Amino acid sequence: MRPDWSLHVLVDPATIPLARMPAFVAEVARGGATVLQLRGKTTPIPELVRYGEALGEEARRHGLLYLVNDRLDVALATGADGVHVGQEDLPPAAVRRVAPGLLLGLSVGSLEELARSRTGPAPDYLGVGPVFPTGSKADAGPVIGVEGLRAIAAAWPGMPVVAIGGIQPANVAAVWAAGVAGVAVISAVSTAADPEAACRALLQGRP
Amino acid sequence: MRPDWSLHVLVDPATIPLARMPAFVAEVARGGATVLQLRGKTTPIPELVRYGEALGEEARRHGLLYLVNDRLDVALATGADGVHVGQEDLPPAAVRRVAPGLLLGLSVGSLEELARSRTGPAPDYLGVGPVFPTGSKADAGPVIGVEGLRAIAAAWPGMPVVAIGGIQPANVAAVWAAGVAGVAVISAVSTAADPEAACRALLQGRP
Repeated sequence: MRPDWSLHVLVDPATIPLARMPAFVAEVARGGATVLQLRGKTTPIPELVRYGEALGEEARRHGLLYLVNDRLDVALATGADGVHVGQEDLPPAAVRRVAPGLLLGLSVGSLEELARSRTGPAPDYLGVGPVFPTGSKADAGPVIGVEGLRAIAAAWPGMPVVAIGGIQPANVAAVWAAGVAGVAVISAVSTAADPEAACRALLQGRP
Repeated sequence: MRPDWSLHVLVDPATIPLARMPAFVAEVARGGATVLQLRGKTTPIPELVRYGEALGEEARRHGLLYLVNDRLDVALATGADGVHVGQEDLPPAAVRRVAPGLLLGLSVGSLEELARSRTGPAPDYLGVGPVFPTGSKADAGPVIGVEGLRAIAAAWPGMPVVAIGGIQPANVAAVWAAGVAGVAVISAVSTAADPEAACRALLQGRP
């Protein structure tokens, strides 16, 4: 059975401290999140490992998938269900070779990157964006808009696409209308006053 | 049989370009190097993986061990013999769990760090330093001197110690006299006019 990619909530230890994390996971699970992705670009690796172990435990408790951004070694060390890599991370071929049992997400920001990615092993889903301007990812590529999202999604038939970048309850309807399998968010949920309600709002309009 | 830890040459793709690397490995192998360690803090990961695959091949061709600094995922992806981690990298327990077949080196810069490290699984060797001031590692801890090296080496009997940090042919005799299993160098070999001769000079005084 294909995983439910509907709503990826990215979790940064710098935004959600470890002590707050279990309650946060419970809230987003109630709101309908299906995937947690650990993404701690500024977190020291030993701390990231401890956080990831705890996050994976909470994810399992609530029936969510637990992925790790970028670092396959942290994913393996913390028993993650998968890893999400970008174009400047470990190549998908290397991930599949080292960890054939893990789910694999791959970021793609243009038709050129998509064409290049199709020469390697297929990931389990594509992370496509940034759809809208975002402040959460300093190294995000050019904004592609809903039209760019639609074009990239159409270029790899059958591949689940998870839209990312500046997605908020206010603009999510157009994203779902583009035919995506899911949306991924950072600040829209982790800085929301009510993360559960934010998740519910993001899932409005899902086909 | 215990590996020969005598002379670790750290290889940075930013200093030794890929085109130069095979000749460089041949030269240091002739000079007596026993271990190559890939360390590319500023190299994008896809490039580091390509470089590591090629470095591993050259290492095998010349009978040297091939280790990767810091990134266990890159070590696994490039078929390395081992990984070298610091106090701020993946903890030894995680490395042993994920990759029990790999050799493991662990950096230790003080008796406190050594005491903390002894609570986890033992590595295959300790990297101890910086023995002398060095310009090659921006995040190196305080200089420990030969006396500090001797004290740390004595604190874990039977554990091979590889000294690192500012080691040059001119100061290596005192390092060998401290009873180490090996020395590790970056600039002393990779920026030498004659890397083979630099290796030979570093091995002078080895017991």
